[in-house]
This record gives sequence, C-alpha cells and structure tokens, in this order.
Amino acid sequence: MRKPSVYLEDIPLTEAQAHWRTALEKHGLFSAMPGETLSLTKACGRVTAAPIWARISVPHYHAAAMDGYAVRAADTTAATETAPATLTIPDQATYVDTGNALPQWANAVIPIENVQPAGHPATAIQFYHATSPWQHVRVMGEDMVATELVLPANHRLRPVDIGAIAAGGHAQVVVRSRARVAVIPTGSELVSAGSEVKPGQIIEYNSLMLTAQVEQWGASASRCEIVPDCKADILAALRSAAETHDLVLLNAGSSRGSQDYSGEAIAELGSVLVHGIAVRPGHPVILGMLDPTPGSGRQTPVPVIGVPGYPVSTALTAEILVRPLLARWQGLADETPPTMQATLARKVLSPSGDDEFMRVAVGKVGKNVVATPLSRGAGVITSLARADGIVRIPRFSEGYPAGERVRVDLYCRPDQIERSIVAIGSHDLTLDLLAQHLAAKGKGLRLVSANVGSLSGLIALRRGECHLAGCHLLNADTGEYNRSYLQQYIPDLPVTLITLVGREQGFIVARGNPKGIRHIYDLADPAVLFINRQRGAGTRVLLDYQLTQAGLTPDNVRGYEREEYTHLTVAAAVASGAADVGLGIRAATAALELDFIPLVSERYDLAIPHEHRESSLLQPLLDLLHDRDFRAAVSDLPGYSIEEMGRVAHEDANKPASE
Amino acid sequence: MRKPSVYLEDIPLTEAQAHWRTALEKHGLFSAMPGETLSLTKACGRVTAAPIWARISVPHYHAAAMDGYAVRAADTTAATETAPATLTIPDQATYVDTGNALPQWANAVIPIENVQPAGHPATAIQFYHATSPWQHVRVMGEDMVATELVLPANHRLRPVDIGAIAAGGHAQVVVRSRARVAVIPTGSELVSAGSEVKPGQIIEYNSLMLTAQVEQWGASASRCEIVPDCKADILAALRSAAETHDLVLLNAGSSRGSQDYSGEAIAELGSVLVHGIAVRPGHPVILGMLDPTPGSGRQTPVPVIGVPGYPVSTALTAEILVRPLLARWQGLADETPPTMQATLARKVLSPSGDDEFMRVAVGKVGKNVVATPLSRGAGVITSLARADGIVRIPRFSEGYPAGERVRVDLYCRPDQIERSIVAIGSHDLTLDLLAQHLAAKGKGLRLVSANVGSLSGLIALRRGECHLAGCHLLNADTGEYNRSYLQQYIPDLPVTLITLVGREQGFIVARGNPKGIRHIYDLADPAVLFINRQRGAGTRVLLDYQLTQAGLTPDNVRGYEREEYTHLTVAAAVASGAADVGLGIRAATAALELDFIPLVSERYDLAIPHEHRESSLLQPLLDLLHDRDFRAAVSDLPGYSIEEMGRVAHEDANKPASE
Repeated sequence: MRKPSVYLEDIPLTEAQAHWRTALEKHGLFSAMPGETLSLTKACGRVTAAPIWARISVPHYHAAAMDGYAVRAADTTAATETAPATLTIPDQATYVDTGNALPQWANAVIPIENVQPAGHPATAIQFYHATSPWQHVRVMGEDMVATELVLPANHRLRPVDIGAIAAGGHAQVVVRSRARVAVIPTGSELVSAGSEVKPGQIIEYNSLMLTAQVEQWGASASRCEIVPDCKADILAALRSAAETHDLVLLNAGSSRGSQDYSGEAIAELGSVLVHGIAVRPGHPVILGMLDPTPGSGRQTPVPVIGVPGYPVSTALTAEILVRPLLARWQGLADETPPTMQATLARKVLSPSGDDEFMRVAVGKVGKNVVATPLSRGAGVITSLARADGIVRIPRFSEGYPAGERVRVDLYCRPDQIERSIVAIGSHDLTLDLLAQHLAAKGKGLRLVSANVGSLSGLIALRRGECHLAGCHLLNADTGEYNRSYLQQYIPDLPVTLITLVGREQGFIVARGNPKGIRHIYDLADPAVLFINRQRGAGTRVLLDYQLTQAGLTPDNVRGYEREEYTHLTVAAAVASGAADVGLGIRAATAALELDFIPLVSERYDLAIPHEHRESSLLQPLLDLLHDRDFRAAVSDLPGYSIEEMGRVAHEDANKPASE
Repeated sequence: MRKPSVYLEDIPLTEAQAHWRTALEKHGLFSAMPGETLSLTKACGRVTAAPIWARISVPHYHAAAMDGYAVRAADTTAATETAPATLTIPDQATYVDTGNALPQWANAVIPIENVQPAGHPATAIQFYHATSPWQHVRVMGEDMVATELVLPANHRLRPVDIGAIAAGGHAQVVVRSRARVAVIPTGSELVSAGSEVKPGQIIEYNSLMLTAQVEQWGASASRCEIVPDCKADILAALRSAAETHDLVLLNAGSSRGSQDYSGEAIAELGSVLVHGIAVRPGHPVILGMLDPTPGSGRQTPVPVIGVPGYPVSTALTAEILVRPLLARWQGLADETPPTMQATLARKVLSPSGDDEFMRVAVGKVGKNVVATPLSRGAGVITSLARADGIVRIPRFSEGYPAGERVRVDLYCRPDQIERSIVAIGSHDLTLDLLAQHLAAKGKGLRLVSANVGSLSGLIALRRGECHLAGCHLLNADTGEYNRSYLQQYIPDLPVTLITLVGREQGFIVARGNPKGIRHIYDLADPAVLFINRQRGAGTRVLLDYQLTQAGLTPDNVRGYEREEYTHLTVAAAVASGAADVGLGIRAATAALELDFIPLVSERYDLAIPHEHRESSLLQPLLDLLHDRDFRAAVSDLPGYSIEEMGRVAHEDANKPASE
C-alpha cells in the first residue's frame, strides 16, 4: 500500500527548532563538548575549552631591547655632548645582545652605536648622553604577567594565539573535543561518485557534501556505505552509528514514499520529535533521538536528523539545523553570514505556509546591487553552487515583487560581489570559456552568466542588472545583427557592440540524421518532432525568420511550443529521444555525439554600456578578446570563427544612423 | 668585531616587493602550482587547477519529480472535473517513485494523490485533470548538461562544489598542489615551548605561528629543529630545507647583530635580493634565492625569506610577504581583509621613512567606531593577539592626530566588532573573569578591556570611546568613591554607577617582607625602593591621599617617579627585585608568591552611560553580576568582596546632589 506523499505534520521552522532544543537540553545535549588536551602544533583552528592564564611572565626577566651595554642609569647622568662619561667593563657596563638578560645591578641599555669602546679588548666605554632608567629595556612582564588571562574559553585559535599561548609558558592547550558525526546515505537507486550510471540510478553525493560541511563546521565526520531501501539494513546502520557518534545524519527516506523507512526506523530505535518542517526546500525533515545502545557506556540518547534527499534540501537542512548545533557544541555562537541589501531582479511567488530559502546570484552593476533568483528546484545542485547567497522569504509573505529591497545572506564576502562581472543574455559556450580564462588570470574576478536569451538580456541591460549582454538578434529586413534591437529596446543608454564570435547555427539531430532533416521545410513533416528555444532567444528569432522565409507558420511545426533555454538543453533533448531536431550551434552537438546540419553563419556580439566599457572592472575581460590563449581555445570549439573577435561592431550602437 | 645594528639598505616595501616579484618571475616562480588529482572526499577547501566540465548530464534521464504514474500527456486531455479519464496499467500508466526513470513513451507524471487506482492489484487509474507535457518531470539536463562548465579553475572548493562535481560524473578533481614550506627557527637563546626558562632564554614560538599561518594559507609546512647561532649549522639547515621545499622561511638572525648569520648564509648558498625593508615592525627582512641543490632534480632556485625575530615582526612579515606568494601559487588573488572606517582614539607619531602596520583594538560605541592603538612594541605578541585589525600608516605621513578617520584592515568580521563591549579604565582582575564568563555564554559577545587607569577611563567615556569604565577614585574630602569625579569629568552625560567589587588595597612586598614594611611612613625610608602606578590611576590617587594624610610628599618616596600601568606589572616589578614595594590589590600577589600588607578596603564601580546600560548589548554582562558562577569565581580570588556586586551605587551618578 502506497502512502500519500504529503507531510501532514509540517510545522513551522521556529517551532521545530524549539522542540529540538528542548529535547536536547533535557538530556544535557545543548551545551559545549568537553575539552581535550592538544599540542599547540595541532591546535590552530580549534576552540579553547578553558581560559588560558599565563604560567610565566613575558619577558620573564628584564631583557635588553637593543644590542649595547647594560648600565645603571644613575651612573650616566654626568655625560654631556661636550664631556663624555666613562664606565668600566664589566662592573659598570656589560655588553648585551638584544634579548639578553640585564645583570641584576643594571637598569638601562646604551645602544652599541652610541658608545665608543676603549682598549683592545675593550675595558671601558665612553658616551655623550645620559640615559634614563629602563631605556632600551623590555621590562619583565611587558608582554604579559604570570597569572594574567591570555585567552578566554570559547575562542577559535588563530596562529598569533598559538604564539601567545606558547609565550605564556604552555606547550599544550585544552580545546573542545570535536563532535563525531555519522553520515548514512540510503537509497537502492544510489551508486557511488564516478560510477557509470544507468537510467534510474543516481550518483550518491549528498554524503560527500554533508561530510565536507560537518568537517568545515568543526566536527569529525564518518561516511558510511550506501544502505539500500530496506528497513532492516537501515536499522542496523542506525544502531551501529549510534554506538560511536554524537550525531547521526540519515540521508533521504525521510519522506512518506513507499520506500521511505527513516521515520519508522528512528521511531523504533528511539523517538521522532518532528516529522516535516515547513521550509522550502527541505520539507521532509525528521528530528529525533536514538536511545543509547545498552553496554555502550553512553547514558544519553543520540540525536538523529533525517535529512531530505534532494541535494539542495540536503545542504540547506544541514545549514539550518546541523551547523547551529555543532557551533553550540564548540562553545561558539552560530556563525551569521555576511549580508548585503539588494534589489530583486524578478517577481517571486512563494507558497505561503513555508519559510523559503531562495538561492540568488548577486551582482553589483554601477551602484545597483541586484539579486537574481536562480532555479528553485530542490534537485538542481548547480543552483546552490552558483548562488552568491540566500534570500529568506518568510512564511505568509507569499513572495516579493520585482524591485523589492531584500537582504541577502551571502555565501561569499561582499567584496567578491564587487569583483563580479555580470552577463545576462544569450547563451554561448564561449562565455564558459571566457569565465574560465578570466578566473585563470588569478585576480579574483568572476564572470557570472545568466542564460535568458538575447532580448531578455537587452532588457536586463536597460534595467541596470548586468554589465554586458550577449546577443545575436537578426533584423530580417536589413540582415544586420543586434543594432536595430538596441535602438528599439535601449534607446537612451549609450551602448557599444563588440563582437565576441561568429558561429554556425543549424539543425541538431541524432547521430546519422535518422529523419533525414536537410532543410527548414522538413520541420513541417508531421513525423518530425521539434524542440524550440524560448521566446526572445536569438535562435528563436532566427527560426521564426527562417519559417517566414519558407512560408511556414508555427502551426506547421510539431513541438514548436516546447521551449528550452540553452543550446545544450536542446541538444540534450535530441540526445534523449524527446525530440528529433532543434535549432542550435554546432558546438552543442559535439560532446553529446549528435549530428549537425548547418543552416547559417551569424554574429554574436557583446552589448556593453559605455560606462561599464570604460570601467576598470571590465578591462581584463575585454583584454581577453585579444588574448592568444583565449582565442586559441575558442578556435578549438567546432563551428566558431574568431576572425572578428574583439572588433568594435558599433561604437554607439543604439544611436540612430542619421545622427 | 661587532657590527652596528642599523639597516643601511632599508628600502621601501613597494620597491622590495617589485624586486622580489621580478626575481620570482625570472625563474617562473610567480605562477600557480601544478595540479594533482585528489579524491572528492579529500578536496574540500582545495583550489581547482583546471576547469571541471560535466561528464554526464544531470539528470541523465527524464526522471519522475513526484511519486505517481508516468503517462503520455496527450492521453490525459479528456479528463475533466466531472468526467474522469481512465488509463490502463502498465501500458498507459506506470507507477514511478520520485527519481525513477520515465518509460520511453511517457512525458508526464500524475502525482499519486491525484489518482484513484482501480482493481486489486490496480489495473487502471482514474483522474480528473489533464496534465501538460513534462509536468512533474525532471527533464534530462535540468541541472547540468554533459560538456557544460561546472566550475572554473582557481576556485576554492566548498561542500556544495564537491556535490556539483560528483553530480557531473567525477569521483576525483584536479587541485593545486600545496607548496611545501620549511620553517627554520634559529637562535642559541631559544628553548622549545613548554620548557622551563632561565634568564636570557626565550621560548621559541615563532615557528609555531609561522607553520600555522602557512597551513592556513594553503601550503604544507615543515618545522625544523631549533638551529643555534652557528653559521655552519645554519648553512646545513638551509641546504637540507632547499632540497625538498618550495619556500624556506629562516626565522631571525636577519638583523646585523654579532650573532646574525642569515644574510651571510643566504648569500653563500645563493643570492640576497633585499636586505632590510622600511616597514615597522619588521625592518630586518631578507629576500633571497637559494641555488638549486645539484642532484635534487630541481632546476630553479628556491626562494628564501629571512623573517625578523621579534614575534610581531615575524607574524606581520609573513602576512605581507608570504601570504601573497602562497595565494599566487594557489592561483588565487591575495585575500584582502574586510575593512572598516574608524576614528583614531589617540594621536600617533610614526617614523617618517617607514610604512607602519599599527595594531588597533576596534570598538563600536553607539554609532561611533573607535580604533585604539595597542602597544607598538615588536616583542609584544599580545598586542597582535588582541588586535582587531591593522591601521597602515604610510611612509612620510609621520602619523595621525587623534580623531583622524582611518581605515582598519580587520582581523575579524565586522559584525564581531558590533558584538564587542569596550571597557576602558582601571585595571582589575575580575574584568578578566568577566570577559571569561561572558565568552562562556557562547553568544559571541566579547569584553575588550584597555587598562589606562580610572581617570583616563572617565575621559574615554566622555569621548564616546567605550561602553563602560571601571573606576575606584576616592574623594579625599568626602570619603566617597567615584561620584565627585564623574561630576567633574563627565557633567553632561547621564551615567549610572554599578558596583563591581569591594577589594583590599595594600603593600605588595617580597615573600617574608624583607624590608619590614608595615605603614605608609615606611615608604619614606631611603633603603626602600617604591614602584608607583601611573597618574590618573585610582591606586595612585589612593597613594597620594595616604601620603598627604601622613604628611609626606612625593620627594620623600624613592621610586615615586617610576610608573607601571597595572597591578600585575607592579607585582612583577617587586617579584623581579626591581622594587621593594608597590601599592596594589591582594589578588595580584597570590600567583607571584609575594606578600601583602593590607591598607584599606575600597569600592570598585563600573560607570555606564544610561544609553548603554539600557542597550541589549550590555544586558548579558550586567546579568553576570548576579550570576552565581561568576560571583563564586570572584569570591575565590583573594582580597575581594562580592557583597555589593551588581548594586546600583548611583542611578544618576553625575547629577549634582542638590537637583
């Protein structure tokens, strides 16, 4: 019998956190870990579990601060610029190197360059200036005095702290023990990273992410073997993990599908406190406790979290629920991310009952900080890898309009946002290469691209959301690329068009071209299933132009209404058999082992407002268009011409020609 | 023959960096390290050495996004709310769990909760709504398409990146090799951390700091044994290190003292490029190259840095010269610190020819961000451990006036500054305990104290430089503590006085009280050498009051002019034999095994402006005054009374009594 996959018990996040905290506190599990003694050579990055008091003073004696002669200040008072004083060696003056202890009777040092030794070997010194007591002396305790607090507990040790502790007379330090966290991946469909995959199989990488997260947050993680969807196996894995760990993360199976045993298994070995939290992504979260294993010596239950299986849900659930607990166990406050105010680029709707954690890309364009929502699919791990931060949409807000001022919890430092070049517009593979070569320059600059099509790119440019827009928009009347569209869509912002590449557009078909597609007329064949690009894409404009020229209408093309957003996804649709043909660039066919029937050559330009073109931010990117290595890399891609790369197609592209 | 310890060749930092870079580039040593292949389980935190392209698409098949029935959308068009459609199992509808591959013929999923199965076992499904193509389907390539760029080179891997790389079909990743850095501590006066030390011996901890820094910056460090100041030994250590390392850090001996062999040794094994850089602290820096060891297989020289020996110089030289090189070798831009604008609390003079790196504590008091210079001694490691950041004073600026707006390069995150409570004023040991207990609360709050004496604390309070000031200022006429001083020094800012502790003040003398000091009159004994506190300290006020009462003047007291800033340094002076007696608190004598002759009991208050007293920042600190654990800890210190702890001594302490 299959259970419905709705989560009847979904409760608000704050409520779930309160339940969890109460349960942890009840068992004394919401306090810092005990301490362990570590050598200072291994302690950097760890957190102090006890205050560190100086065992000795530093310096622990009066020390010379210069190379010179240790003297009694009172013996020097007679010296003047005209009448030098003389002190005898060694009873009135003794040579000391920097760091040497002063003789008991001395209380000052005269630097070597201010004295004239007399005799060989010297038996006396002469000097022309009196010295005051304790001059050029590091007095005992100058740095720290025995018994003084060197560092408090709950302090994460940095290299200089290691130095200060050692200076205070210690070779070891008591730091918080690292919590031991077990990560158990479950799922009969899972195979290990790097395996060849068959349809229905999924590469298991959540456990790689979870262990990396847990280690980053100061705990030690052990990753178990993949456990199939079999309750007995899951029970065994939980039992074994609970014996030797402080926290168990059971990944997936926390939902209510036919193969989801996490809830039952946790209930059987202890208790389920929460099943289902109203966060998005992340809904099917379980918070529970596993009873201590008899004979393990452990008296308290072991907390367990059933972590949902969609990778974005996995990573965010860990951030929301695991990180604060591990911080607490280290005796630290949970690390709040740096934040930035930004303007939302698009309207977003959010299901009203959920707290939503929306991934966004953030760009600073002129003075405008723009947050652009990324894919909200919980399965799209690249949306998290490419996110600059999270915008939290609180429950019952239902979303935000475009232009809303929002707070972004950043994954990166704010200054990295300032070193990002934002490109919004048409997708082209050379943009990936450009990003690659820009990063390789090692100056910390990033190229962040969003693929929304040529027209949407121009609109983003007008709204000040990007530094540049890639476009290849053919004017059917003039045969000219891009310029007339700029005049129409961005009449007021001076923009330069710089050519990136020339490229071949054509039909993407299965290997061997089984449907024998040669010409635009072939798209009207009812046996042929087409896959289209989205409205506003340059390739869509090209298709519509070609159809009109051939006297065809969209009604004649089966599949015209199904839209993809990039050349690669069109190619993927053909490769999977979901379509027979799509229009796209040659380079998209190579890696997927498809065939390509060329149709036209077109120009792909970068539209760049004058203000950005002249900014120092964009210079390294523009320089790359003339860089030998980058040009060679583009030449290696099939279907590209670099002949016009870097050429200014139009200095003032949107100025009407008459002016 | 002793050489003068001046650095004739001191050159500006920028010039030194340019020389260094040119020399490195000449040998191809100023570019990123080669790559090595690592398992994804070990790659988090490492830097990609090559772009990562997706090997497979994700999903690599059309996958069900819900538990339900895979169908052809075209078969569902007849369904309406009044007339359900029926599809037969398995040819028209097939059950799929989330993640399962769709059958080749299907292009949509109807969620389980929207269908009614017919028959046992089910042979058909009924449903009331048509579905559109690709609904509830994760289409092939939704996340990434084979050949797409997953991550560029020169990207530091985070947990989600590990996930994205694994999703793209990889189990390994090519990351930058870690540079191998040798750290060689030299100096005959050095002993290892934790050793018992004799006068003239110094605990060697620079190598602990340097290795921790180097590891933190992405290289692998090996720490050599301490090498005595013997040229042959230093040559041998350098030769051996150069065989197996990419960079050698030779600590100390880089100056021109009689025992400084670093320059000669480096010149003998290769070349000295720079000897002496006009930075403070840090002057005696050496930049050089060691010739490749014949037979080692290495063709290029090995860069070597002679790092100066004062610990603050050591750490800052590494930040300035080692960190950027290691970043470069990782293919990264040198990490610029977060910065904050602040107002300088005190005037600072700086030697005009040097770039000075001044350590500062930073506090945010109300809206006022204040940077307070810390000790500028290159030997005072606590000045670096306690620093919140660095203010760079450029050469030829000669310093800054008080109140100057300066940029602070922060060692912490800006929000940590906002969670700091700043106390400036009299020194008391319970402030250390308060800091300790506040940190233990684990909310990320810090108490940052500067010990400048009671009066200077009140002045800092008036200037808005601190949240509270500890004071124990006796009014000789009224016998009352603190209030009259507040009325005099801060008439306009409403301030509350809250008592921290009562404490004993008395004479700090050597064990056994060898000079038989019992009474204030004994300070006038010419055989007795006194050590005083600085002007404005409450203890100094108390001494002057006691002297006046006894009919004595400062002239009667030998040592009156020598000032220390804390009770502990007074105690240290007595312990070292530099003085016979000082005035101070009983607790300062305990750990240094001194004797204490009680003189008076006094009240030590915290002066807190009303605006801060009511702020949420200070609440946890004020709560601690009523905390059982904290009170018990203070009681355990000798000479303290907690009877009045937390009592409001005066709500409006600086309001004249008549109002």
